[in-house]
Amino acid sequence: MKVKIRTPFFETSVKNYIYGDAVLEYARAADAASTEHNVDVLFVVPYTEIRRVRENTDRLIVLAPYMDSLRPGRGIADVLPEALKAAGAQGVVLNHSERPMTLNAIRKTIDRANELDLLTFVCADTIAEAQALAQLHPEILNPEPTELVGSGSVSDMRYVKEVIRAVKSIDQSILVEQAAGITTAQQVYDFIMAGSDAAGSASGILTSVNPHALLNEMIRSVSRARDDLMKRNE
Amino acid sequence: MKVKIRTPFFETSVKNYIYGDAVLEYARAADAASTEHNVDVLFVVPYTEIRRVRENTDRLIVLAPYMDSLRPGRGIADVLPEALKAAGAQGVVLNHSERPMTLNAIRKTIDRANELDLLTFVCADTIAEAQALAQLHPEILNPEPTELVGSGSVSDMRYVKEVIRAVKSIDQSILVEQAAGITTAQQVYDFIMAGSDAAGSASGILTSVNPHALLNEMIRSVSRARDDLMKRNE
Amino acid sequence: MKVKIRTPFFETSVKNYIYGDAVLEYARAADAASTEHNVDVLFVVPYTEIRRVRENTDRLIVLAPYMDSLRPGRGIADVLPEALKAAGAQGVVLNHSERPMTLNAIRKTIDRANELDLLTFVCADTIAEAQALAQLHPEILNPEPTELVGSGSVSDMRYVKEVIRAVKSIDQSILVEQAAGITTAQQVYDFIMAGSDAAGSASGILTSVNPHALLNEMIRSVSRARDDLMKRNE
Amino acid sequence: MKVKIRTPFFETSVKNYIYGDAVLEYARAADAASTEHNVDVLFVVPYTEIRRVRENTDRLIVLAPYMDSLRPGRGIADVLPEALKAAGAQGVVLNHSERPMTLNAIRKTIDRANELDLLTFVCADTIAEAQALAQLHPEILNPEPTELVGSGSVSDMRYVKEVIRAVKSIDQSILVEQAAGITTAQQVYDFIMAGSDAAGSASGILTSVNPHALLNEMIRSVSRARDDLMKRNE
Repeated sequence: MKVKIRTPFFETSVKNYIYGDAVLEYARAADAASTEHNVDVLFVVPYTEIRRVRENTDRLIVLAPYMDSLRPGRGIADVLPEALKAAGAQGVVLNHSERPMTLNAIRKTIDRANELDLLTFVCADTIAEAQALAQLHPEILNPEPTELVGSGSVSDMRYVKEVIRAVKSIDQSILVEQAAGITTAQQVYDFIMAGSDAAGSASGILTSVNPHALLNEMIRSVSRARDDLMKRNE
Repeated sequence: MKVKIRTPFFETSVKNYIYGDAVLEYARAADAASTEHNVDVLFVVPYTEIRRVRENTDRLIVLAPYMDSLRPGRGIADVLPEALKAAGAQGVVLNHSERPMTLNAIRKTIDRANELDLLTFVCADTIAEAQALAQLHPEILNPEPTELVGSGSVSDMRYVKEVIRAVKSIDQSILVEQAAGITTAQQVYDFIMAGSDAAGSASGILTSVNPHALLNEMIRSVSRARDDLMKRNE
Repeated sequence: MKVKIRTPFFETSVKNYIYGDAVLEYARAADAASTEHNVDVLFVVPYTEIRRVRENTDRLIVLAPYMDSLRPGRGIADVLPEALKAAGAQGVVLNHSERPMTLNAIRKTIDRANELDLLTFVCADTIAEAQALAQLHPEILNPEPTELVGSGSVSDMRYVKEVIRAVKSIDQSILVEQAAGITTAQQVYDFIMAGSDAAGSASGILTSVNPHALLNEMIRSVSRARDDLMKRNE
Repeated sequence: MKVKIRTPFFETSVKNYIYGDAVLEYARAADAASTEHNVDVLFVVPYTEIRRVRENTDRLIVLAPYMDSLRPGRGIADVLPEALKAAGAQGVVLNHSERPMTLNAIRKTIDRANELDLLTFVCADTIAEAQALAQLHPEILNPEPTELVGSGSVSDMRYVKEVIRAVKSIDQSILVEQAAGITTAQQVYDFIMAGSDAAGSASGILTSVNPHALLNEMIRSVSRARDDLMKRNE
């Protein structure tokens, strides 16, 4: 059975900004913040650190940054779904703008992830791409205009609402995250309040002055937005 | 400083034939055979298992199956050289026939490996390709005709000697391994006796009836050939 | 303005089965059959032959087998949309199973084609992929299970009807072609009668004993099916 | 038999800076200058224009910007060597920095070119890459540091002489061209005088104010350098 994600959630990735022990420290900080603020945190981590992060954290939902769709056998440098699962991964990022995939590979890899109960976190560029990918029914869609990734610029709220509507009209159960260009906790709060199921940040945190503090603050913002949404709905 | 390899050595890879705990068991068997026969063993292992294999073995020389040449920063699914090093990798396979690389990427990645003291184990197809790659001065060249990889058919001795001569005439210090299609310990012995610095096998072992036993036997063959070569040279 | 296609139509490609003057001869045979049976024929032709085929035929709708999305400038070996247009292409095939594209590239290239009034003929593998691609609103969708391409095996009618329904439910205006594995004129007839807007064949024709005769017969089958459908609807 | 090239020669490419009729006009200008100055000119042209340029010029040596190594058959968007040859191509550019190739593909494609008597014009980045490629014995090597391509900056003479020496020490018969960053006729003259077998320019010409005039001037510089080299050697 796939891991159940409680919304709103937070997602972060170390990309290749840090490596080795620094990844574990960042993971522990995310794990502590997840517990402190009672917010689910998806943590995308390089292949080499999946096992270590999973074994040394309690609440993080650990995702691989990519996988192939091959089955056990040849393919010396391919990323085998079963190997990710065995190392502790609970899901996988697909079609990130830094690793675009053919439509055929996305579809096949989602099939493989479903077979192994791995969550699929699929990235899109435009709204049209998000709608196309919604037809493949991943658990999470992350529509971020490529030009914003790692840029420090953020999507506007009209885009955010439009993309949520476009995805949910095809499959109501797909969770929609906003991540492109998020650098402040206030942006996290605003995106959740605008209807996003999640917010995420990687470079925004890891290139900041105090990454662990900003990480905690962003996760706290998810919690705060969740509470405010509940009040609004009472 | 890069790890020093004593020749003749043995090389094996799990490719994606096995995953998870089975990789660790295979690594331990290789490590034990390395000690038992006093033969250096290069062990190529999926990214997810690099740290675990390195931490749980004594003598294996641990190689990643591929890496990119990027520097720390973006590139969510790229394989960062520093991350491999931090996880315990002592070298890297480049341009395997199952993950061919552009000439430009091979050259850049060898530069990065040299910067981090990672051994470079570079694969070639024909003799012409081996000569081209010799100009980039990797530590190890593995010239294996693509049509033999994973096939159970083996290179003939004329090819073996010709390719060794071709590579050494460009750079005497490059170690030349034969691996394509090796399925028996006798082939390992024969290739070493014919002048190869090393022999290797992946699918030949992992698709056999008793992989751990065949692995041990092959490593023992390297030791036996080493002894016979010494006697011959006395 | 994009070329208007009358349905049902026929589509054929030379792939790389033939080259040089043989392509022109095949194009003339297709053009003659198009006139004889009053059926629109989409003709997919290697880049080198686009101008010659267009200049030497009257009715063929000429398609390039692929294009990139770049704009005029660098990119020495990229296929520039403006260059195809200038050479006489009236449309382009995208995401063929022999040249799979990233979702992002498909979307961008459809945008470029629309900008230049080039028809987009987009290939899909499964029904799920066809639905995803329907969200990008190409003129023509060609959903053919990869395992059938060039195989001589044909899609069954249940698949055909299901895929038409799936695509049209997203965008009624998309034309749906069946092409995978078609080797006989009867199959062409059957697919049109089952509701396909078009049928197509490449290897089925070009590896047959008498390609020009089979081509003519297939195009005649489209005409015959069109007539029978009209009678049925009277 | 392959076309014989007389040295020193000039090479130019339209890349995708221009398309359609403008390519033919540029080709005619190059052809006229080739005749006027009695200098061989290699002309790299998009696939769509190969036949038209070849049929409408007298002296140009027409090259395709890339090709695949497949044989006639499937591969709808692959560039078939036989198709290029039939369209009039006399050679092919391989491994351009804007279309890098795997070492394996370079080697296979050179084999295919040799089979069809097509000249091979192979690009390299560093001196190390040029030496690697020299082992594959193309007719022409164009070592241009990637960072200079299309930049308007030019290689320095120490690099030029070092790369010529490095290539010729492996295979004396390989012609070495300098092209990176050339924007003036004086640079063309200087490179030839420094020992280059050829000079080339694409963006330098096509982004200039008067491309046809600059093209003529550059080709004239090759002629002038040839004359001055003869005098020097008397």
